[in-house]
Amino acid sequence: MTPITRPDDIDRALQRATTAAARLRVVPDRDRADHLDAAADALDGNAAELVDIAAHETHLDRARLVGEVARTTGQLRMFSAVVRDGSYLEATLDSADPHATPPRPDLRRMLVPLGPIVNFAASNFPFAFSVAGGDTAAALAAACPVIVKAHEGHPLLSRRTAEILTAAFTAIGAPDDLVQVAEGRETGVALVRHPEVKAATFTGSTRVGRVLFDAAASRPDPIPFYGELGSVNPVVVTPGADAARAPALAVGLASSFTLGGGQFCTKPGIVFVPTGSRIPQLVVDGLPSSAPWQLLTDSIDAGFDRSWHRLVSATSTEVILPASTRGSATAGVARVSLDDFVADPELRDEVFGPAVLLVEYRDLDDVRAALALLQGSLTGTVHAEPGEETTDIVEALASIAGRILFDGWPTGVAVTWSQHHGGPWPATTSIFTSVGATAIRRFQRPLVFQSAPDGALPEPLRDDNPWKIPRRVDGTLALPF
Amino acid sequence: MTPITRPDDIDRALQRATTAAARLRVVPDRDRADHLDAAADALDGNAAELVDIAAHETHLDRARLVGEVARTTGQLRMFSAVVRDGSYLEATLDSADPHATPPRPDLRRMLVPLGPIVNFAASNFPFAFSVAGGDTAAALAAACPVIVKAHEGHPLLSRRTAEILTAAFTAIGAPDDLVQVAEGRETGVALVRHPEVKAATFTGSTRVGRVLFDAAASRPDPIPFYGELGSVNPVVVTPGADAARAPALAVGLASSFTLGGGQFCTKPGIVFVPTGSRIPQLVVDGLPSSAPWQLLTDSIDAGFDRSWHRLVSATSTEVILPASTRGSATAGVARVSLDDFVADPELRDEVFGPAVLLVEYRDLDDVRAALALLQGSLTGTVHAEPGEETTDIVEALASIAGRILFDGWPTGVAVTWSQHHGGPWPATTSIFTSVGATAIRRFQRPLVFQSAPDGALPEPLRDDNPWKIPRRVDGTLALPF
Repeated sequence: MTPITRPDDIDRALQRATTAAARLRVVPDRDRADHLDAAADALDGNAAELVDIAAHETHLDRARLVGEVARTTGQLRMFSAVVRDGSYLEATLDSADPHATPPRPDLRRMLVPLGPIVNFAASNFPFAFSVAGGDTAAALAAACPVIVKAHEGHPLLSRRTAEILTAAFTAIGAPDDLVQVAEGRETGVALVRHPEVKAATFTGSTRVGRVLFDAAASRPDPIPFYGELGSVNPVVVTPGADAARAPALAVGLASSFTLGGGQFCTKPGIVFVPTGSRIPQLVVDGLPSSAPWQLLTDSIDAGFDRSWHRLVSATSTEVILPASTRGSATAGVARVSLDDFVADPELRDEVFGPAVLLVEYRDLDDVRAALALLQGSLTGTVHAEPGEETTDIVEALASIAGRILFDGWPTGVAVTWSQHHGGPWPATTSIFTSVGATAIRRFQRPLVFQSAPDGALPEPLRDDNPWKIPRRVDGTLALPF
Repeated sequence: MTPITRPDDIDRALQRATTAAARLRVVPDRDRADHLDAAADALDGNAAELVDIAAHETHLDRARLVGEVARTTGQLRMFSAVVRDGSYLEATLDSADPHATPPRPDLRRMLVPLGPIVNFAASNFPFAFSVAGGDTAAALAAACPVIVKAHEGHPLLSRRTAEILTAAFTAIGAPDDLVQVAEGRETGVALVRHPEVKAATFTGSTRVGRVLFDAAASRPDPIPFYGELGSVNPVVVTPGADAARAPALAVGLASSFTLGGGQFCTKPGIVFVPTGSRIPQLVVDGLPSSAPWQLLTDSIDAGFDRSWHRLVSATSTEVILPASTRGSATAGVARVSLDDFVADPELRDEVFGPAVLLVEYRDLDDVRAALALLQGSLTGTVHAEPGEETTDIVEALASIAGRILFDGWPTGVAVTWSQHHGGPWPATTSIFTSVGATAIRRFQRPLVFQSAPDGALPEPLRDDNPWKIPRRVDGTLALPF
């Protein structure tokens, strides 16, 4: 597979994608579900080779990569189930009512695919957020062909993954060019601005995400840009939880903020603990033996160095464990009082890498006010004991985050029907999730047929409901079985 | 009610709206449905007074205004039904699975309100797209307080409507400040840029909509901007339909493109007819006797004058009936060949007011190519005879429009569960509708609770489903009854 890199390539790639989109529109849903299953089977069948390439390119450990392949094929199979279920079409039928004022026509609504989509792969998930990742699975499930802008951290893996997908699609008789691969930052921006591209997804930094968001929004015809950008993932440890189980909490935190070298968008970056808590010291003792980490790319390594030093150069922060950076990272732990945290906006920015800032509070009520100063996050966590009043804290977390955890750690994002991986800006740029079944809605738009003869309707809207999908008929939701 | 006009007012209005949002969050759904019903009853009870004010301010005829009040109260009651149904919460529960790899936690998802919303009222629907209009009804249904930027075409009506709503909400014990009114263009832009505003809606011209879209997108934290902008609403008359019923089609078209003085966003502006069709002449004979029309505002009158003259100054167009403009509008009908239409992009822009452009084609296949040149539209219509092959035309219309009509006229938008009033840019700026039940989704974001104790969950997500709403549990959609 030759990746798309030059302007001429881009036009040709979009011609191919537009053709693929037209062909996909007439593929029945059950066949499209089969495409997704075939892609999953092909990745599983080639997992050993893919993990070899990924380990070489990303420095991630093999056990983690093996697990990530399984997660990725699980995502593809989940979207196959979403397509087979049929609810994602939101089929809604209203009968004509000639006696209404004014007379009401027969109206039938469903969601249809947007068209060609550009997905920007992430550095930190070479499988799950890359060529065959969740954004690709969701777009294909919605019948949208995809151009993946490969991440420069794993180019060989990206090309090989695309080859395996293409072979699997060809073998099952799917339309050509369902997934193409592009390379280079300028190519990526050009794709976002191409007239035939109908939406873009991105997982990465707030800085790069903002550039792409602005490119999408400033088009003559703006398109949706679904970015998953920065997140500090605040955690609140109540006085009760601190008193009851500080050692266990410290071990859990140490494991979570260093997982994958701290290179997860759900890494807990800011943790509120009571003044005098032993957690800041215990977390150092609880660090896993997996350090040091070679970070994913030189650019991430440099960014970790820069943001760690910004954090600890604030006069108010106390370094408990200095991170080592530049080529080989070890964990950093810093502490600050809540008053100083509130006074210094720089302390609230994300540090991407294995570092955590502990914020010591005297009164839980002050934490609520501090949370209100944070930007949007993917997650918010509370550790409390039964009987402690945490309603206000949960409400404060809910107003800035998309997922509220009770007595857990935010790293680890289950791929399920109910999952939400998103939150107020800059956690995400939209009111959608990038993980879980409803991520498909990002690639669909409504279309209504008024007074159409039955034969002119798409099958999901015909009288006899040939696909046996859930539909809302005259205001009442009805199940097919 | 004193409208918001100065910068100080804006901050205070947002403080009030933020307080209202917090109070709304703890109002049970059934009570919020009651608010909507109370608003509808109050408008119905004061309809005579409101119609008097509207007739004076807008020059629209009373019968139309009486009907529009009924449509508006119908919208409020529909959203009451949407809230009572509960599907709009998209409640989704996945059980914990400790045996999964990795172990899967208990996850429960629902949609929650975004927060304070700014709605820009439209000139052409002083009730249905104004203070108590569809955007307000949808936002209140989603538990979001609203600030309406009143349209300068009907300021007294806007204030009086807000007073009636406020009195109705107070009488039923609803939180204060659910609906506030602002005036002035600069106030509107300042509202879109205010940090506490979480989304904005707009119905109006592409030019003004683009300014507001850019203001929303260029915020430090961009917010959704749901604009419903320009639309030419193409209509295709096949050779068969033309041969079978040109006189009836001409009468239908004449009535539709002049309805409300042509000041509907769904006005059919571009109509493809076979070369030699009698429709261009017959449509002149079929014009209703309601002309001339005093258009809604001086600005709309000037815009109609400008865009009609732009249309007819093209050397390729032939004027069949010259519109009169400036103060008292009469209908304009122009004709052009398909070849000339394809060659001149200026002919494809919307003319807001009572004018139509008939495009004469020799071959229906050429119409498909011409449709592909059009920007996004709210609607696309085909008039055909049984047995005529129109698959390609329907597909071409579906790719640029949100509602496809068979043998009808696009003016008239039924407010139902299935309605979609939207389409590719510039018809709308998002993948949502601004009319119909699903318009509520514009004001919601997902929130997930992970491993929450039952008592910490919002009622819609508790084990016993106390609100008896449809929910998806472990992947299966389940009805409450």
